[in-house]
Formats: sequence, structure tokens, C-alpha cells
Amino acid sequence: MGKSSVANNAYSNAISYSVRTNIMSTIGFIGLGQMGSPMAANLIKGGHSLQVFDVNADAVAQMVTLGAVAAQTPGQAASQADFVVTMLPNGDLVRKVIFADDGVISTLSKQALIIDMSTIHPFETDALISDLSLQGFEMMEAPVGRTSVHAIKGELLILAGGTKSQIERAQPLFDCMGSETIDAGGPGKGIRVKIINNYMSIALNALSAEAATLSEAIGLEFEDAMKVMSGTPAGNGHFTTTWPGKVLAGDLSPAFMVDHAHKDLGIALDLANQVNVPMPCGAASRELYSITRAAGRGRQDWTSVFEQLRVTSGLEAKIK
Amino acid sequence: MGKSSVANNAYSNAISYSVRTNIMSTIGFIGLGQMGSPMAANLIKGGHSLQVFDVNADAVAQMVTLGAVAAQTPGQAASQADFVVTMLPNGDLVRKVIFADDGVISTLSKQALIIDMSTIHPFETDALISDLSLQGFEMMEAPVGRTSVHAIKGELLILAGGTKSQIERAQPLFDCMGSETIDAGGPGKGIRVKIINNYMSIALNALSAEAATLSEAIGLEFEDAMKVMSGTPAGNGHFTTTWPGKVLAGDLSPAFMVDHAHKDLGIALDLANQVNVPMPCGAASRELYSITRAAGRGRQDWTSVFEQLRVTSGLEAKIK
Amino acid sequence: MGKSSVANNAYSNAISYSVRTNIMSTIGFIGLGQMGSPMAANLIKGGHSLQVFDVNADAVAQMVTLGAVAAQTPGQAASQADFVVTMLPNGDLVRKVIFADDGVISTLSKQALIIDMSTIHPFETDALISDLSLQGFEMMEAPVGRTSVHAIKGELLILAGGTKSQIERAQPLFDCMGSETIDAGGPGKGIRVKIINNYMSIALNALSAEAATLSEAIGLEFEDAMKVMSGTPAGNGHFTTTWPGKVLAGDLSPAFMVDHAHKDLGIALDLANQVNVPMPCGAASRELYSITRAAGRGRQDWTSVFEQLRVTSGLEAKIK
Amino acid sequence: MGKSSVANNAYSNAISYSVRTNIMSTIGFIGLGQMGSPMAANLIKGGHSLQVFDVNADAVAQMVTLGAVAAQTPGQAASQADFVVTMLPNGDLVRKVIFADDGVISTLSKQALIIDMSTIHPFETDALISDLSLQGFEMMEAPVGRTSVHAIKGELLILAGGTKSQIERAQPLFDCMGSETIDAGGPGKGIRVKIINNYMSIALNALSAEAATLSEAIGLEFEDAMKVMSGTPAGNGHFTTTWPGKVLAGDLSPAFMVDHAHKDLGIALDLANQVNVPMPCGAASRELYSITRAAGRGRQDWTSVFEQLRVTSGLEAKIK
Repeated sequence: MGKSSVANNAYSNAISYSVRTNIMSTIGFIGLGQMGSPMAANLIKGGHSLQVFDVNADAVAQMVTLGAVAAQTPGQAASQADFVVTMLPNGDLVRKVIFADDGVISTLSKQALIIDMSTIHPFETDALISDLSLQGFEMMEAPVGRTSVHAIKGELLILAGGTKSQIERAQPLFDCMGSETIDAGGPGKGIRVKIINNYMSIALNALSAEAATLSEAIGLEFEDAMKVMSGTPAGNGHFTTTWPGKVLAGDLSPAFMVDHAHKDLGIALDLANQVNVPMPCGAASRELYSITRAAGRGRQDWTSVFEQLRVTSGLEAKIK
Repeated sequence: MGKSSVANNAYSNAISYSVRTNIMSTIGFIGLGQMGSPMAANLIKGGHSLQVFDVNADAVAQMVTLGAVAAQTPGQAASQADFVVTMLPNGDLVRKVIFADDGVISTLSKQALIIDMSTIHPFETDALISDLSLQGFEMMEAPVGRTSVHAIKGELLILAGGTKSQIERAQPLFDCMGSETIDAGGPGKGIRVKIINNYMSIALNALSAEAATLSEAIGLEFEDAMKVMSGTPAGNGHFTTTWPGKVLAGDLSPAFMVDHAHKDLGIALDLANQVNVPMPCGAASRELYSITRAAGRGRQDWTSVFEQLRVTSGLEAKIK
Repeated sequence: MGKSSVANNAYSNAISYSVRTNIMSTIGFIGLGQMGSPMAANLIKGGHSLQVFDVNADAVAQMVTLGAVAAQTPGQAASQADFVVTMLPNGDLVRKVIFADDGVISTLSKQALIIDMSTIHPFETDALISDLSLQGFEMMEAPVGRTSVHAIKGELLILAGGTKSQIERAQPLFDCMGSETIDAGGPGKGIRVKIINNYMSIALNALSAEAATLSEAIGLEFEDAMKVMSGTPAGNGHFTTTWPGKVLAGDLSPAFMVDHAHKDLGIALDLANQVNVPMPCGAASRELYSITRAAGRGRQDWTSVFEQLRVTSGLEAKIK
Repeated sequence: MGKSSVANNAYSNAISYSVRTNIMSTIGFIGLGQMGSPMAANLIKGGHSLQVFDVNADAVAQMVTLGAVAAQTPGQAASQADFVVTMLPNGDLVRKVIFADDGVISTLSKQALIIDMSTIHPFETDALISDLSLQGFEMMEAPVGRTSVHAIKGELLILAGGTKSQIERAQPLFDCMGSETIDAGGPGKGIRVKIINNYMSIALNALSAEAATLSEAIGLEFEDAMKVMSGTPAGNGHFTTTWPGKVLAGDLSPAFMVDHAHKDLGIALDLANQVNVPMPCGAASRELYSITRAAGRGRQDWTSVFEQLRVTSGLEAKIK
């Protein structure tokens, strides 16, 4: 479903390509911020007709110089559009530009597709899709990965949440803005995978700061610590290293015991507290190991922390 | 310094090899647990003479069947030894087997080298080296990475903390037990890098459990989440992805702003709390972002969390 | 301003009382849940005329048996009312019942006073007051303390946030529902003080659970632990014991040093982790002490944790 | 068992008093720090003969001016003593002064009683009592509450852990140093109750800092917040307010539901994160409520957090 395959087809098959070029679309684009502006610019570059709306007049004006039509309201942007793309800071705004008196659906054709590319709360996404559906409108979500630099180059990662046919329909737009589209598995799944990915990377950034600060505080060169961590789960994560052969395979026989992990974590935290490096993420993680031990898993593999957290969360145990 | 280069020399160059074989050593080995036993076995297999001690008589007996001599006390194990290797569960025990009345130094030659391969508190390592030195004895530390499976195969990662000459002297032993030796940069650095590495990987395991559990609780297939995370810092860490071009390069201009990271983390935590997935590590990390924002860094790159934690820890700011 | 004084006047002075009774009001009451129903009942008992609205028809019917008039919409409840009281689960609902097409302000007199007694986000309260004011309507907030038992008895604690004249005007209503009114200091302050109070008591409940569980896990009778804690800040809090003479007085000379508090906390956490009692609140607090020590306050009084957290939050230092 | 009753007897009954004065003791006192020095001084004032040891020669000299005899070693201090009191910074030191070659038991009579008044790890206390017992010596612990000001005035709180007869025997010493003795329930219980009490008060200090800082950051006067909190569990704790009628009585029917507590905590944390007040303790506590909800307790009384934490810790459920 990625751009590469589509692009390959497009370039190797003139007929398919010409069909594609025939379906240049009219797009209402709402939200011209740090990400939205380059995304809109790449849609224009791709040959689409854009009707743009933003409260920031400068951002609108700049898009007009690239060939967009300025809309005075979200409704105007949506008028006669094949697609409406929203790229806004939060779910309240997305709801407002869609449902307000002069909002998107005040003019939108019921044949059009709304694509929300904002990062918002997944339950807001669900509610938007459902509320729109009740009024006969169709929405999918497609939040993006990577940075504003990638947005400018049209190399975003598109996390598409929608039906197969919605994603197929939106693919030409995605191909203008991104270099890779991932079908997240259905409506609402795109925003879910975005939130999970961001959770993991944002929290991991903080945890990494703890390890690197402690490293410096005890007199280690970061490069020396990195030499080791780049060859272990510390640097490469667990999802593709320790987990597949253990907790994901239903095997909790210990390669490295919870009790030992808990002990080593205690040493690190004691050390950190002696040299005044606050490590709140690590401190919190020790208490998760404590929960795991209290559940009788001290001599299981350390990856059983995942199984235990599942159970603590009220999910059914997978491993007997 | 790794085994591969040494091994290559050894096997491609008979003279070098024969020299090596001439220096087969007598080794007092103390601590025959899940890791110690296979390590000792590999030393025997490598041609060394072992005098082994453990409170577990079965473990001793098994090593005797492989050719080791049983010692009744740590002192007996150390008698006439070139090296004493300790592989024990904690620093108190290491200290006890060395300094007790019938301990290692009651018999040890001052020409011998003690190698502590246990994972203990770095300040205990420092104290042991220093206290032994006062009595004319020499100790280095060499904690190991990887698992008991690697210990059996002789493929441990050796994190050597010592002087260059100590490491060189111990290398033939390390080559029996491990497949890679990293010179951590001096005495006490081996145990420090071990603790940092373990801190990072153990806490990360817990954080990974949080992300994966939330993923399941909101109806995402782990495989779908993995598809995305395997291409982002969520799966690959920050040390070699986002950090080198930003905080490590002294550049805090935003590729992804602290404020946005903080917002996305808030969405994830709100979501988790709605579906009853406890995520204490992530919750703790949000408060670190809050500290970072309170310090006026909201519009800096998210990697500035590292710089801020350094400052919060009392280390000098590196980036002006 | 409390009920007691008003009540004293009322009962000692028949004229004043009769004046009060003369100003029985028409009240639109929206939200008949566990708290709202008894509050509405007490207003009826107090002689006021109630027009009630709730999506739960049973709750409405029950109030009608007590003498209330059933309204079909929030607007109908507000029609010709002197006051509208809202008691709803969240700020979105409060906004909706007020601003929807058939909402409160579709019929409300601009002389009426809206009193939101819900516990919602303070910034939502601010926005409601401000948005209503733009349209010429007046709102104050008055969230309540204590429990549903107190609601039934008319013994709630009323945390009034509004102008002096708004509070005075609402006092007869408050006196029906509560036994004590606290003037929180102005518009928006009532909900703020509610949130702070609830934060403190709810988090403290969790922390108390940690201490009590550890106590049991190490073989102490809770009663024996209580005997001691009931005479110390552990049982009585810090606000009225250790703080007034120290951090609140600008004196950080140590009665009990941060370093010692940090050490004792470390012992408790080590102990808890040995007996598998997860104590995430305490673990988090240790890292706050670590921040405090990193800021050079190790030998200051332990109450300096407050001053340090102020500084970490970007507030100006108060104590030089 | 408190001083008051003993003192009352003493002062109202000359015979009893004179008996007391007849049993003035010889006391080896080890550890003359901020607490130890005034405690030793009060023993001298009480008529006892002190043999004092500390590595700080000035502290020893000062005690000699008050009438103490200076000892060169712990063993010398213990020679011919009826009691040995230790007041030291950590358990390693206590062990060292007792068991070293020139330590306490190198000279101590087996009829003497060692009283460790230090705050150390309870498992170290247990080990000391047990190790001493094996060699025929008797030790009890009696850590102290309150501050150095109370130490000077002889008004410490003595948390006595020992047999009834040990406590009775030590009472005359305690009465010199403290104004209240609590029998904690047996050997090892004194240090346990001390650690629990300190855990609770030290962590609570940090939590209080969070609430007070948030209060200031959102524009509330601390006094206004205090007015409310001083009448609720926020200011008075839960042990004597909400718990006795609910979780301690086995009744989890909701006065205030876990779900509502969880919701309000979420509001406070969201607010704090908007105004950049880090509240790591509160954030951690929310995840405990999340665990409680995941266990199906959302509609139980909020005090069920205690019952749930017990269960999570592997203790048997008390409430069906």
C-alpha cells in the first residue's frame, strides 16, 4: 500500500498513470501550521486544486501565491471539494471546523471524503467518524509520522485509518505528502497507532535522558556507554530482540530473571540517588517490577513484566 | 581488544598460539551459580586449572567432574592462583569472600590478579579496589553482558574495567568466557557501563510493556503497532536517531517541539486512564517534560529533555 | 458568611427570617445524579420552586413527587428562573446544557444567576464565565465538598467562587444545601480550591495505602503504626505542623535535613522492594528529594522541598 | 509505659524515686552527632556514668566537660557497662562498632543490654539482634522521633522495640532522653514503626509541596486553600477520617467513588501540566487508581485503593 509500489505501477504503466492524472482533485485544506503548510504545498505541486482556510492570514496568503484559493470559512473551503483535509492542533478545533454553522459540512458534498490528519485523541476521532456518519458524511483519519523537514520534502509517514476503499481513494493525496503509507488496520486504527508510537518514543526520550545523565554523573563518557548499549536492548529496544523468543512466544522460562532485573535496577537507582540524578521513569519502572514479583513472577523471564501489566490492566492472561 | 581479533591471531598463527598455551593459568573461581558455572566450565575447556569454591556442594561437585579442584574455603581456592575470579550475587558477598579470615587474601599471592565479574554497586567496586590496593593486592572488574545461554556458549560480552595491562593480562580468560571484550575506559568503568546499560534496558522493558498493553487495550494488533514503531525512535531508540543531530550536536532548534511531545503524551495518558492501563513510567516521563517546559524550553527540540535533566541534576549546562 | 452565622441570625431574629422567606426563588436545576438529587430536594424543602431537567427520567419523576416541575429541555428549566444550578459530571456537559440550541441561555433572563456546582476543569469554568459574560449572562461557581451523605442532610461544604454580591445573592440557596460556605476569594477560585483540595486528599489516600500496606507486609499491626503516626506529620500533615515555622516563615535552617529525609526514604523503598510492596508515590517523592539535593539544598530543612518545587516550576524563589 | 506515668510515680512517691536513683547505670555511648550529643548529655544530667566514643574528637571532648569518660575504642566504651547505646548514621557503622576487633562485644558483659537508637534498615536490626544473640549478647532497638530541638530538651519520642523486660530495663534511660515511650510491640518493631512513620511523613511533605505549588501557580492564596484543606482529609489525613468507617471496617460501599476520585485527579494533573507544575507523586497516584479501576473497583469507595494495593502486593484480600 506504500507509495513505492503505487509509484512503481504508475511509472511502469502509462495507462494507469494517465488515469491517475485524470483524477486531480479539488481539496479543501484546513490548518496551515508548521506541518499543514508544506503538506498543502505538496498537494498543489501534485496538481491538485486547493481551497485553503486558516485563521492565520499570512499562512493563507502564502498558499495563495502557490496557486491555492483562499476560503473565508471552513465551509467555503469544503464547497465542491472531493476531499477535505484537516491538520489542526486538537480535536476541539477539528470538531468546530467541521460542525460549526459555517463549517465543513455546511457545504460539503456527501460524496466527498474528509481526511483528518491531525494528532488528536482517538476517542475524538471515533466520535467524529460516528457523528459524521449519522449525517451521511464520510471521514477517515491519517495522522503523520516524522518531522516538518519530511513534510517539506513530501516524505512523511502516513498512518492511514480507514476502510480499504477510503485508503485507496486517498492514496494519490498521501503520495503527494508522504513517502510511505501504512494501512493501520481500519477506521480509528491510524490515530491509535500514532498515539502508541508517540507515547513510546516520547517517554523513551525521557528515559534515555535519565540513563545518559547518570552516565555523565558517574564519570562515564557517553560514547563508551553507547558502545555497549548499541549492541543490547538498551539501544535496540525489546520488541525485536528479547520479546519475540520469550513473552511473545508464550515462553517465560528465564533468560534473565525478573528478580535479577529488579536487583540491578535497585543498584542503578541507589547510585543515581547518591549522585543526585533524579530518575523518575526508572523509579516508576522498579515499582512495576515489584508488582511483577508480588504476583509470583520473580523467577520468570524479565519479559513477563508485559504479561503481568496486561493482567494488572484487567486483560486476560495469555500465558499459563 | 575483542576476542575476534585475538582469536584470529591465535588460530592463524601457531607461534602466537603456542605462546598462549604456555601461559595456561591457575584460577581460583568463586561463585558457581547460573552464570558462574558455565563460565568456569569454559575456563577449564580453555585449558586452565581451576580451584573452585561455592557454598552449593552440588555445583562444586559438577565442576570437579569437569576437572576442577574443590576448595573448602575462598582462601584455599586462591592459594597459588594466578587469577581469582568472583561471580557472586552482591557486593557484600564479594567483600566477604575476599576479606574474611579464610578469604581470598589470606593466601593470595600479591602477583595475582582478582577479577570481579559480579554485578554489584559501582561504589562497592571502587571500595574493593581501593581497600585491596592498601594491602598490596590488585583487582579489576569485568561484569558481563548477555544471558546464561551465552555463558554456556562462551559468547558473553565482557565489560572490562581496569588498566590496559590488567585487561591485556586477563584477556585469555575473557576469551574463554566471552566473544567480545569492551574496554570500558579504566578501573571502575566496566561496572559503571554495566549498570547504565542494565538500567536502560530494564526500565525500557517496563516502558515497552506499557506501550504494548495500551496498544492491546485500545484494539490495535501488536504487529500493526510494531510495523510503525520499527521505523521510528519508538523502536530504535534515540541515541542513534534523534539525538546525534540535535542535543548531542548542541542544536535545540525544534524538529519536534517539547510542547508537542508533552501534548501527545497527555493524550496517551488520558487514553490509558480511560481504558484502565496503568502507565507509571509514562506518567513519570510527562512530569519530566513539565519540568522542561517550566524551564522555558517548550519550543525547543524534544531532545532538550536530556539537557534539562542534566541541569536539574546539578551538572553544568552544555548548550547556551 | 457560613450558614451558622446566617442561621443564628435567622433564628434569633424573626424579622430577618421572614425577610428571607419572602425571597423564595424560582430555580432551574439541571443534573439529578447522586449529589444533584438530594441538593435539589433540599432546595425544595427550603421553599424554593424548582424546574428540573435530567436525561434520567426516573430522577426527574422522583423530584416531581417532591414538588418540582419537570422540564423537557435545559431551556425550559431556565425559563423565568432567578437561578440556574448545574450539577453535572463534566465541563463539556455544562457547556452543552448552557449553550445548546435549547440550552439554558435560550430562555434565561439576564437578571438571573447561573451557579455551576459541578467539579470541572478550572479553565473550563473561566471560559464559561467569560463566554457567558460576552452574551450578557452572569455565572458563578460553587463546587461542593463532603459526600452524598452530607448532600442528603444539607450539610455540604460550599466552595463559593464569585463576586461578593454573587455569593450574597446565592447564600440562601447554599444554606439549603450546605452547612458551611467558604468564600474562596473571587470568580474561579471556588473551583480552584476544590481541585487543590481534592488533589491533595485523593493522592494522599494512595500514599496512605502504600504506608499501611508496607506496615502490614513487614509484620506491624496497623494500630501500632497509627499510635505513632497520629502524633507526627505522618498523621497530621505538614501544613499546620512543620511548614509554618520553617518554609512558610522563610526559615530553611534544618530541624530535619533533606539529606536525612532522603536517606530514610531510601531505606523504606528498599524495604518495600524487598517485600514486594509497590510504592510508586513514595518512589516518585524520592526523586523530588533528589532534585532538591541536586539544587544544593541537602543540608536545608526538609520543608525546602516546597521552595525547590516552586523554583522547578518556574515560580520565583521566595527564600534567599 | 510512657514517661508521664513513670514520672508521676517517681515524683509522687519518694521511695520509688529513691529506688530509681539507686540504680544509676554505667553506659557506653557511641555516636555523638547532632542527635547523639544532646541525648548523651541528658543521660549524664540524669545521673548516669557515661563512657563515650566517637571519631569526632571535639564531640568527645565536649561530652567530657559534662562529666563523661572518653573511650579510645567502642570496646573501651563498652567495658563494664550496664548498657551500650549506639546512635549512628547507618547500619554498617552500627555493625562495625559492635563486631570489630576492638568493638563493643570485645569487652561487653553478657549481662549488659545494647540499645541501638539509630535509624537503620529494619533487616539490619533483625540481623544484629540475631547475630548478637548467637554470641550470647542482648540487643534491643529504640529509634527516636521528633527533632534535635527535642533531643536537647529531653523530649524525644522513643519507639521501643524489644521484649517487655528489655523495655522496662531501658526505661530509666529513655526517660532521660525522651518525654514519651511507645512500646512498638516487640523486637524489631520499633525500627519498623519508625521507618513507616518516616516514609509517610517524608513522602507526604513532597506531596504537600505539589499541592501548594499548584495552588500558587493557579492564583490561589495558600491561606484560602488551607482554610478548606484544614477541614478535610487533605489536611487531616485519612487514617482517622475516611478509613475507619470504610476500608478498615470492611465496607467499600461508596461515600466517594474511585471513579470520581480518578476523574478529579485527572483534572488536577491536566491543570498542573498546563501551568508547568511537575507533580510526580500525584501522577504516580493516578496510576494506582488506574490499577484499582482495572481490578473492577471503580464504583467502590475510594478507600478501596488500600485493599487493592494489599492484593497487588500479594497479601490476602480482607474484604470479600
